[in-house]
Amino acid sequence: MHLTSTQNPKIKQLLALQQKSSERRRSGLFVVEGRRELEHCIAAGYEVESIFALETEPPFLTGVAVGESYTVSSHVYERIAYRGSTEGIVAIMRAKEHTLQTLHPSSSPLYIVLERVEKPGNLGAVLRSADAGGADGVIICDPLTDLYNPNLIRASIGACFTVPTAVCSSEECIAFLKAHGVQILTAQLQDSELYYDTDMTVPTAIVMGTEATGLTNVWREAADAHIRIPMLGRLDSLNVSVSAAILLYEAVRQRSVQ
Amino acid sequence: MHLTSTQNPKIKQLLALQQKSSERRRSGLFVVEGRRELEHCIAAGYEVESIFALETEPPFLTGVAVGESYTVSSHVYERIAYRGSTEGIVAIMRAKEHTLQTLHPSSSPLYIVLERVEKPGNLGAVLRSADAGGADGVIICDPLTDLYNPNLIRASIGACFTVPTAVCSSEECIAFLKAHGVQILTAQLQDSELYYDTDMTVPTAIVMGTEATGLTNVWREAADAHIRIPMLGRLDSLNVSVSAAILLYEAVRQRSVQ
Repeated sequence: MHLTSTQNPKIKQLLALQQKSSERRRSGLFVVEGRRELEHCIAAGYEVESIFALETEPPFLTGVAVGESYTVSSHVYERIAYRGSTEGIVAIMRAKEHTLQTLHPSSSPLYIVLERVEKPGNLGAVLRSADAGGADGVIICDPLTDLYNPNLIRASIGACFTVPTAVCSSEECIAFLKAHGVQILTAQLQDSELYYDTDMTVPTAIVMGTEATGLTNVWREAADAHIRIPMLGRLDSLNVSVSAAILLYEAVRQRSVQ
Repeated sequence: MHLTSTQNPKIKQLLALQQKSSERRRSGLFVVEGRRELEHCIAAGYEVESIFALETEPPFLTGVAVGESYTVSSHVYERIAYRGSTEGIVAIMRAKEHTLQTLHPSSSPLYIVLERVEKPGNLGAVLRSADAGGADGVIICDPLTDLYNPNLIRASIGACFTVPTAVCSSEECIAFLKAHGVQILTAQLQDSELYYDTDMTVPTAIVMGTEATGLTNVWREAADAHIRIPMLGRLDSLNVSVSAAILLYEAVRQRSVQ
């Protein structure tokens, strides 16, 4: 079917899913734009509900079950291309469950835990770092954004699909980690040891709070150790995805030299 | 003097400096917005050419020489607040020289070198990481952005003022590093050793290319060693500011345990 009007109900649904987390939650659907992101998403087992291809584009998906398939005029495509990409592909996908039960801890897991993360771009960037560092998963506690925000998907360059993720409360996360014998390392500047003096070769969760307010007390108290990245400049500040990567790669280093 | 029109020549000058690198280069001036950034800028010895304060704001700068001082109406402020900040302060500052001669190598310097960096936000984020990791300087070779781009200043959260920076060609940089006995470590995925197997306790420059095309041959050939960050996920990709921080903090770790 070929769509030429931005007033088409299907296009309106797509725009609502891009713009509103409430609509994503209600429907269990979300939007992916771009070939690379869509490939990662499908490879991770997500189902395609609808696909929208610019009419001039060659066929893209072969051998993949697609609910509904549309071509769109360039006028419509310009409206639905959130990122302004020129790749000519936007899809509506079915969301997955992100419970703790979907994580399957390896023999010596390495988790990144984020409490109350607010900015989708920051969460996306952490997922990108977590993918590179081979984290077993990212656990998102009491988040203020949803996992399928378009800015998150974009900042993650698709890592939101490749990295196992769970969303839960801090209390549920702490119970999960303790039940699986995973040590809890909280990143905090005060009352802490240098991160590279900490043994990360055992099952480990690296827990980080917001840039503005840090971690809540429930985490500080549950911690097996408090760790800090030394701040050697004038600003006392690192982006959360940078901090996550520094800590994760120290675990990678320690585990490689065992 | 109180400004109420966006057509005022002084306001037009400010907008041109925000928007055009050519105007910044021609005049040797640039724009800083926000209290924290302005404080870092002034503390780093930059001179204030003009300051524009929202009329309702309390006096901000005391004990600092200011060329010209204006209050502006909220209508004008909305137009000049590039970041949409509500801090009520925007200033035109005098640029500094960023030659290699302005760098003063310490006894065992640690430099970040970026070749052909294009995105101001990426360069700003690298400067933020360089500040935190205590780099002696960031050397920017053949850049495709200028140091005073508003997105760069914003992403650096002021680190563009706190970290010594030099802009030059790759050939000039290589000559400078060799003259000062600084080993050259190029970050590249092929034909390289793991970064944590490399000695960074000696004078070191960590050299990185663009995310898209990597480093040019002149760097690969000048290198004392090629190093890589292991990519353990599906995406084979880290943001350049994240890579810079991982490598820089490995040097910090090695130097702390000497």
